[in-house]
Amino acid sequence: MTLLVDITVWDPVPWVTRFRELLPGRSVLTPRDTFDPAAVRYAAVWKHKAGGLQGLPNLAAIFSLGAGVDHVFADPDLPAVPIARVVDADLRDRMSEWVVLHVLVHHRAQHMYDWQQQQKIWEDDPNQPLARDVRVGLMGLGVMGADAARKLKAIGFDVAGWSRAARSVPGIECFAGRAELPAFLTRTDILVCLLPLTPETRGIIDAALIRQLARDGRLGGPILLNAGRGGLQVERDILACLDEGTLKAATLDVFEAEPLPQASPLWHHPRVTVTPHNAGISEPRSVAAYVVRQIEAFEQGGQIENIVDPRRQY
Amino acid sequence: MTLLVDITVWDPVPWVTRFRELLPGRSVLTPRDTFDPAAVRYAAVWKHKAGGLQGLPNLAAIFSLGAGVDHVFADPDLPAVPIARVVDADLRDRMSEWVVLHVLVHHRAQHMYDWQQQQKIWEDDPNQPLARDVRVGLMGLGVMGADAARKLKAIGFDVAGWSRAARSVPGIECFAGRAELPAFLTRTDILVCLLPLTPETRGIIDAALIRQLARDGRLGGPILLNAGRGGLQVERDILACLDEGTLKAATLDVFEAEPLPQASPLWHHPRVTVTPHNAGISEPRSVAAYVVRQIEAFEQGGQIENIVDPRRQY
Repeated sequence: MTLLVDITVWDPVPWVTRFRELLPGRSVLTPRDTFDPAAVRYAAVWKHKAGGLQGLPNLAAIFSLGAGVDHVFADPDLPAVPIARVVDADLRDRMSEWVVLHVLVHHRAQHMYDWQQQQKIWEDDPNQPLARDVRVGLMGLGVMGADAARKLKAIGFDVAGWSRAARSVPGIECFAGRAELPAFLTRTDILVCLLPLTPETRGIIDAALIRQLARDGRLGGPILLNAGRGGLQVERDILACLDEGTLKAATLDVFEAEPLPQASPLWHHPRVTVTPHNAGISEPRSVAAYVVRQIEAFEQGGQIENIVDPRRQY
Repeated sequence: MTLLVDITVWDPVPWVTRFRELLPGRSVLTPRDTFDPAAVRYAAVWKHKAGGLQGLPNLAAIFSLGAGVDHVFADPDLPAVPIARVVDADLRDRMSEWVVLHVLVHHRAQHMYDWQQQQKIWEDDPNQPLARDVRVGLMGLGVMGADAARKLKAIGFDVAGWSRAARSVPGIECFAGRAELPAFLTRTDILVCLLPLTPETRGIIDAALIRQLARDGRLGGPILLNAGRGGLQVERDILACLDEGTLKAATLDVFEAEPLPQASPLWHHPRVTVTPHNAGISEPRSVAAYVVRQIEAFEQGGQIENIVDPRRQY
C-alpha cells in the first residue's frame, strides 16, 4: 500500500521522514513523486491542494495531521471516503499551555506590569482578584477544551464550558446548545474559544456574542481568547467591541486570513495580543505515530478512530 | 484584651477595620492610638517600627500578617514571645498563579512573541519544547512551594523541589539540604525561588548557584524566578550571569531594596521582567480571619499554629 502525504503550508520533509521510519517496507510518497494512483490506500493531509485526492480509486481513508478537519472540507472535490481527525496528547497539552498562559496574563494584568516596568513604575493593583473570583468560559469541550478546563480549574479559576452537544466534565459547569449559550456567556469574564470550524460555527464570535459576555466581572470587562480557528471570529466585530468597550482585550492565535496581513489593525491594537497560530502545534513524532496506529488497526480489521461526520464536517 | 496592629508600608485601615469586625467588643488599636501598654495581649505586624513592641508586659504573641517573618526579626528589640507565621490559602494560591504564569511566559517564549507582534512578524518556533521536556526546580517546599509544584506538574512540567529539611510532595522529586543542592541545580532549567529569608538563606542566589543550573536544556539557557525575598538574591551576580550567558533570563518580584530603585539596571535589562512585589498579596479578609482563629484557639487553651523557631528565624 501507499501512503500519500499531501501537505502545504508546513514543511513536509519531517512528516515523510517520520512516516517512512514507522512504515518500513511501505511506500510513503508526496504529490511530487511519480506513483500509481491505484496503489494509494491512505492520504495524510494538511491543507492539501484542492482536487489532489481525486483519481485514487482505492483510497480507504484521509487522515488530518493537525487539529480540525475544516481544511480537508475546504476541498470541493473531496472523495467520499472516511476522514479522520487526529487526537494527540502532545497537541492537547500544548494547547492547554497556551490557554493557561494567556488566561493568567490577563488575570494578573501582566501587560500592565510590562508597561509599568518600561516606565519604572512600582505599583501593584490592590484590587487584584483571586482566580476563583474570575469566571472562565470554554467554548468547545472536546479533548482539548476539557483538558484546558481541568487545568484552569486546578489553578483555581471558576470554569464553565459550552459545547454543541451536551458534555460532562467533572467539576466544570457544562452548558450545551444554542439555547444555553446566553446563560453561559453572561457568566463569563474570560471567553476561551477552542471550537472546531464547521458550517455551524463559522463566524460565531461576532458582536452579538461578545456583547453578551459579563461586564460586571472583576477584570474590568470581558476578555476573548481564540485558539480554535480564525473562521470562527468576525474580526471587524472584535475591533468594534474593543472600541465600544464591550470587550476589554483579546488574545488571538488564529485569524480570518493567515499569516495575519500586514495591514490588519489587530497587529498594533493596544489591547490585542497576536500569536502566530502556534498555540497547538502538530509534531510529526507523535501525530505520525497516531496515524500509523490507526492504519495498522484498520488493516487488522479494526476501526479507525475519530472519523468525522461529513454532514457536520466534524 | 487589646490587639495592636502595627503596620508600615501597607495601608493599615483595611486591616484595623477587618480585625474590629472579627473581634467585636475587643480593643483593636494602632501605635498612633492612646492605650494602656499592659492591656496589649497580641500584636499583628507587617514591617513594624523597630522597638515598637517593647514595653508591652502582657504581650503573648506576635502575628506576621504576610508571608515570612524576616521583617519581624529585623527588629533588634524584639520581645521574647512566640512569633507566628501566617499560612493562608489565598496567599498560597496567588503565589502559585504568579509562578505558573511566569514559568509559562518563559516556556512559551511570550516575550519573543510580544516583540514579534510589535514588528508584525508571523513566525513560530519549530523547536518549542513540550512542558514535560522542561525541568522546573522549586526552592522552598513549604505550603506555597508544594502548591506551586503541584500546579506546574498538572500543566505537565518536569518538576523537582529543594528544601532545607527533607520534604515529600507526591509526584515531585525532592532534594534536601546543602549536600543535595548541586544535583538539584544541575537538573533545573527554570529555577523558582520561594524560600523564606533567614540568616541561612540570605544571598543564596548568587553567581556560584546560578552557574550550576542546567545549560543543556530545551529553553536555550537557565531561567530564574524569585518571588521569595529580595535578600535571597545577589543582584550584582544575577546581572553578571545574564551578561556572561550563564543565565538566559530572570523574572523578579522581590529585590534587595524595595521599591526597586530608579537607578537599578534591572528595570530596563532586556532579559529581566520586574513585578512590584505583588506575586503573593496578603488580604485582610482572609489573613485577619486566620489570626483571629489563632487568638481564639489560644484563649480556649489551644496552641497557636505555625510558631517560628527564633534560632532559625523561620
